[in-house]
Amino acid sequence: SAAEQLSGFICNGKDTLFDQRYFITAIWVWTLAVLAVFEWGYQIDLTDLALLAASFNGFLGFIIGLRINLCYGRWWEGRCLWGKQIFASIELMQQSASWIDDTKLYDTTRRYIVLFAFACKALLRDEPFCSTKKDQRLLLHGIVPLTTAEEVRNINDLAGWLPYFCLEVLRKTVTKAAQQSADLKSDNGLANFQFLQMNSLITDLATCIGGSIRVKNAPMPLNTTLILKFLIFVTLSMNPFLLYDLLGLAGTMGVNFGLTIVYNLLTGLANELEQPFGHDLGDLNLEAFCQAILSQVSAVHERRQYALVVSEDG
Amino acid sequence: SAAEQLSGFICNGKDTLFDQRYFITAIWVWTLAVLAVFEWGYQIDLTDLALLAASFNGFLGFIIGLRINLCYGRWWEGRCLWGKQIFASIELMQQSASWIDDTKLYDTTRRYIVLFAFACKALLRDEPFCSTKKDQRLLLHGIVPLTTAEEVRNINDLAGWLPYFCLEVLRKTVTKAAQQSADLKSDNGLANFQFLQMNSLITDLATCIGGSIRVKNAPMPLNTTLILKFLIFVTLSMNPFLLYDLLGLAGTMGVNFGLTIVYNLLTGLANELEQPFGHDLGDLNLEAFCQAILSQVSAVHERRQYALVVSEDG
Amino acid sequence: SAAEQLSGFICNGKDTLFDQRYFITAIWVWTLAVLAVFEWGYQIDLTDLALLAASFNGFLGFIIGLRINLCYGRWWEGRCLWGKQIFASIELMQQSASWIDDTKLYDTTRRYIVLFAFACKALLRDEPFCSTKKDQRLLLHGIVPLTTAEEVRNINDLAGWLPYFCLEVLRKTVTKAAQQSADLKSDNGLANFQFLQMNSLITDLATCIGGSIRVKNAPMPLNTTLILKFLIFVTLSMNPFLLYDLLGLAGTMGVNFGLTIVYNLLTGLANELEQPFGHDLGDLNLEAFCQAILSQVSAVHERRQYALVVSEDG
Amino acid sequence: SAAEQLSGFICNGKDTLFDQRYFITAIWVWTLAVLAVFEWGYQIDLTDLALLAASFNGFLGFIIGLRINLCYGRWWEGRCLWGKQIFASIELMQQSASWIDDTKLYDTTRRYIVLFAFACKALLRDEPFCSTKKDQRLLLHGIVPLTTAEEVRNINDLAGWLPYFCLEVLRKTVTKAAQQSADLKSDNGLANFQFLQMNSLITDLATCIGGSIRVKNAPMPLNTTLILKFLIFVTLSMNPFLLYDLLGLAGTMGVNFGLTIVYNLLTGLANELEQPFGHDLGDLNLEAFCQAILSQVSAVHERRQYALVVSEDG
Amino acid sequence: SAAEQLSGFICNGKDTLFDQRYFITAIWVWTLAVLAVFEWGYQIDLTDLALLAASFNGFLGFIIGLRINLCYGRWWEGRCLWGKQIFASIELMQQSASWIDDTKLYDTTRRYIVLFAFACKALLRDEPFCSTKKDQRLLLHGIVPLTTAEEVRNINDLAGWLPYFCLEVLRKTVTKAAQQSADLKSDNGLANFQFLQMNSLITDLATCIGGSIRVKNAPMPLNTTLILKFLIFVTLSMNPFLLYDLLGLAGTMGVNFGLTIVYNLLTGLANELEQPFGHDLGDLNLEAFCQAILSQVSAVHERRQYALVVSEDG
Repeated sequence: SAAEQLSGFICNGKDTLFDQRYFITAIWVWTLAVLAVFEWGYQIDLTDLALLAASFNGFLGFIIGLRINLCYGRWWEGRCLWGKQIFASIELMQQSASWIDDTKLYDTTRRYIVLFAFACKALLRDEPFCSTKKDQRLLLHGIVPLTTAEEVRNINDLAGWLPYFCLEVLRKTVTKAAQQSADLKSDNGLANFQFLQMNSLITDLATCIGGSIRVKNAPMPLNTTLILKFLIFVTLSMNPFLLYDLLGLAGTMGVNFGLTIVYNLLTGLANELEQPFGHDLGDLNLEAFCQAILSQVSAVHERRQYALVVSEDG
Repeated sequence: SAAEQLSGFICNGKDTLFDQRYFITAIWVWTLAVLAVFEWGYQIDLTDLALLAASFNGFLGFIIGLRINLCYGRWWEGRCLWGKQIFASIELMQQSASWIDDTKLYDTTRRYIVLFAFACKALLRDEPFCSTKKDQRLLLHGIVPLTTAEEVRNINDLAGWLPYFCLEVLRKTVTKAAQQSADLKSDNGLANFQFLQMNSLITDLATCIGGSIRVKNAPMPLNTTLILKFLIFVTLSMNPFLLYDLLGLAGTMGVNFGLTIVYNLLTGLANELEQPFGHDLGDLNLEAFCQAILSQVSAVHERRQYALVVSEDG
Repeated sequence: SAAEQLSGFICNGKDTLFDQRYFITAIWVWTLAVLAVFEWGYQIDLTDLALLAASFNGFLGFIIGLRINLCYGRWWEGRCLWGKQIFASIELMQQSASWIDDTKLYDTTRRYIVLFAFACKALLRDEPFCSTKKDQRLLLHGIVPLTTAEEVRNINDLAGWLPYFCLEVLRKTVTKAAQQSADLKSDNGLANFQFLQMNSLITDLATCIGGSIRVKNAPMPLNTTLILKFLIFVTLSMNPFLLYDLLGLAGTMGVNFGLTIVYNLLTGLANELEQPFGHDLGDLNLEAFCQAILSQVSAVHERRQYALVVSEDG
Repeated sequence: SAAEQLSGFICNGKDTLFDQRYFITAIWVWTLAVLAVFEWGYQIDLTDLALLAASFNGFLGFIIGLRINLCYGRWWEGRCLWGKQIFASIELMQQSASWIDDTKLYDTTRRYIVLFAFACKALLRDEPFCSTKKDQRLLLHGIVPLTTAEEVRNINDLAGWLPYFCLEVLRKTVTKAAQQSADLKSDNGLANFQFLQMNSLITDLATCIGGSIRVKNAPMPLNTTLILKFLIFVTLSMNPFLLYDLLGLAGTMGVNFGLTIVYNLLTGLANELEQPFGHDLGDLNLEAFCQAILSQVSAVHERRQYALVVSEDG
Repeated sequence: SAAEQLSGFICNGKDTLFDQRYFITAIWVWTLAVLAVFEWGYQIDLTDLALLAASFNGFLGFIIGLRINLCYGRWWEGRCLWGKQIFASIELMQQSASWIDDTKLYDTTRRYIVLFAFACKALLRDEPFCSTKKDQRLLLHGIVPLTTAEEVRNINDLAGWLPYFCLEVLRKTVTKAAQQSADLKSDNGLANFQFLQMNSLITDLATCIGGSIRVKNAPMPLNTTLILKFLIFVTLSMNPFLLYDLLGLAGTMGVNFGLTIVYNLLTGLANELEQPFGHDLGDLNLEAFCQAILSQVSAVHERRQYALVVSEDG
């Protein structure tokens, strides 16, 4: 699998601009052609240029390093956003368990916190909501089903980004819980402050999915990719001229073929880190995140009585 | 288009200091002059200086890399600000849909959230509000028009930055909604907390446009650009002296012509990233952002009834 | 111990991919084999390639430096999260000491602030709660025991992440304190604002443990590690070819053996910084952090009366 | 002006440690002396050392690059703080225009938001408040004067940092507005929430000027500047020894004279970026910022009636 | 003093691992020994290795540069935390001056804001509170003494971190002020919101001292220091072998002695920046910060009446 992954990088066919296999082939053919001309005796006067080659390739490495760093920054931002989402979901569930007394409203909250996570996953992967076998098993056919096939259909029929719909349901539910609470014990305004806190958490959840959509929809500007491609192309095309005198036939071939692969590896890595929400080996494991939310939300639900007892008995 | 883009970078006539075409021409003429003198036999005693050339050009590459990194930071900041603006707009719309009962106030809010986005676009591009065909089609001639030609005229007649005017309308409307709400159900203060949350979102919107104006109006200090130009000029002027002995006529010409183009490509890229709100290929697609706000706000409006039903029925 | 540590890095057997001892052995055997072939007269035509070796190894060093920088960022983030946790715990304790009058609720708060810290430590180290001798001495057998063996058993039996359970108890307790307070002096809403502040601190504590879990569970993407390994492997395998002409037998052996060790040292350091919550020499001293929370919480408890006197007498 | 600027950098007499003109002169005299000794035949045995010179100067360039990066960070921080200040001022003005009904209090707020900006400018430039011709024209002799000569005298007689005095006036005024509002419509607490929001903005303004004072008063530690000077001095002093064999008389002179100028250019740039609040070409244009606040605050004042109409008529 | 400082860096005896003087001596003795063996004719076959030396020393410089950058980040964080503390102290004082009417409570607040700053300084420098002559002059023997010798004794007798005690007093005082205020004008809840704001500022102060303690108590992981020492040691030990052929006796001695000093200078600088709260030349001037708080708090106190007049008269 690691070998597949490596070969996948080197010959990554999903490149946005043009097929990397053609790129590698072109560079290699060019290298062979230049070397053939040199070997057959037609030599232009270019001697001892290895220093130039080292400078050009070194500068290219520096630029590629910068790009990997920026793309890693995006990957890490995606990871942090999902980390924040997991913990905001747990906290919203904890506050619901502590403060919402009405069973129906509490259940709606509990269900939609989990549905929100799966809706985010679906949106970020351009899939319909709850369309994979695994999601259906977890949400529809669990011991306590969290949704119904009909509700899934209804949700998928709605317009706009689905995670936001879940947030609208959560907001409405929390508002209603606060209103009921405020109606009952109107002599102190505590429920209002609880409403404020729960609403802030819903805003946090909105920030998380908003940030993830931004990471997904904001590839680095096309220019940077174009120019990097251009620089790689120029450098690799010039290498046979610059290296032939020093390295001879075998050495030049080896070095330039090797560099072609290494540059493709590194730009392939950068491309993959740039889009952290896919299905590749290095991408974020959104399934595991959704399951973590599901299981921790269930654990809060189970611990609900015990926490109440402890806080009362000291 | 990619080729146009590349040639546009290399001969970018819009440079703030002086025309890059003159710059390239000057460097090339100078290179040819120095080489001609060398070829015609007048040689000063400068041998084996390629190492110096490599050091100078390497240091220049490092400085240019730093500048690209800083300019990319500005581009990314612009992108993040618009991302935040999109999601704050959606959230403000969601809260309006949940909490504002008065139809008129709700409609004003809905309209001005969208108008704010288009006003931001107009301000950042130094255009009048709603002046492009596409904007007019979306705002004036949609199925449900969001504004009228008269209102557009009135808004364009106002003094100051127009997006702030939209925020003033939103703030007034939200205040009025809270006052009505508070008057009606004065026995609990829930509406006040809702007012607090909506007002915070309006502040978020103000922060977004404020940050975008800052990015637009704060080019990097003139000194840095001047000094970078100076260093590029000195390095490229010295290159023919340093490289002639090693590379000969053809090699020196090739390398120095090539480096002139590469440096112009990279500084052109940096210049473009520095101003992310224009119409260039790599600039932020403000039209798409405005349309995203328009369509998601409409989607929230459409889902309004269904969200209410779900939150009540569990 | 420093020597052990160094040798531990060089031959770090806990590597996730494959045993580093095999890696070093393989490289060394390969180096010796290549050199043996060269010494016995079979020479391919590769002369004066030290410049290439310097470029490759330099680029590798740059990449390794980037990785150490990123991993150090994770270590520092872990440190900052625990710093924030310590000070949020002290502050929550201070607010409890100032604002909660009911002795029982105050005691529960005081106990669970400390238990939360130890639960975090246990979770981050994959140990059961309060399972080490030292923890038991501090929590069970102190002058004022903070928990009982039975409670520890009960807590360990609960589902989900235990630190969150502590937060649930704290939240319930704070809510109850605010309700009592509000019931008694319902003529001003001060208790509600105190509730808001204490709840924000509990959210801060949740953010801290959430962030720590993220740092623990989000290793850098497997690709980056794989590719770095691959680059190190290629570079070290090529070194004997490139260096033999310049350095001869002894020099090549010395340099390549040395580089193998240095690269393993640096990647070992990066690996260790990547996971800051373990038991290694450079890892964060979670025991000391827990003890700091324990002792400062006790100090706030002791100073409680004196602070009251000072604030009244001026 | 660009030429003046460049020469100003090279011979920047305002250096904190010692006069840069002496520095350049010393290095050039030293270079000439060493070269004279070499030319007159006394040669010590140092051949082919250009590589060392390249390494030393390259490392120096890396360190200088880091310093420029850090200093640019300070410049950008200063720019961001003023950006935030502009937008917090506008927003505070908007909220005043929406929520403060009492004309006198509203006028005081409007005046002191502008005075605060000019007081910040004066403090950051170590000038008395409203002492320049341009400030007096804008504040005293406008169509609607914002202050009087007497008030300016009174303010300048006060102790401490003047911007903070403006904030005290704003805070008092806002408090009074909230009290009046609360007295009148005590049946709902909306004015309290408005007070909360306006107070947060005043805190934002305090954060901005606080950050600016920090940037102004926190030069980089003296050690770093000292050590950098020391490294530049050592490198430039060693260059003639290392370069003479390779470059000969003219080359060494040219390169070392040129490097002296380039290093001074770059450190001069760093020094200027380090203190962004002065009067130099690259410094922040505080006058323009103050004028932006003045004109936008006036625009909000003018739009006040129209915003009210729109929010009511929809 | 600059010379002392420089020599202090080079022979910094306070190094945590072992005395730097021994380190320098050892390297120099080793260099001389290796050179003596070479001069006396016993030569092993290592020619033309200057390129390797340049690579090794260049990589080392890169790593040292990274470390200086990280340590500077800590210094700057310490500076920012104290900047925030100064401005949060002034703002808390302003709010007290505006909102607390009771003279006794107002005085306690005013006194403890200043005492907090001096307690922070004492804690960060491991000194008892108010133990230096200068502190006693400012706090005990000023025109208006801020504390008494007895109170200083009492405070020093308390357990735990003293700055937190000051915060407890401030919190209690503010709570009492809010309660009195709320009791008197219970018909509007404005005092509650003032309480909220003042409490947030106390939390800000706690964050500042918490962050400073973290910076002080979190040296970089021991491993990084160890490995850097190891790399410096190896590089400097290998230099004589690699440089002798190129540089000869005098050149090798000069370069290696010089590099020893430069590396010690730079690591010494990094060590000093790592601990920004000491008494060294480059450390933060905590005395000046405390005095700034003292004088600005006094200025707010003096301006109190005038600000009231202005806000009333417009």
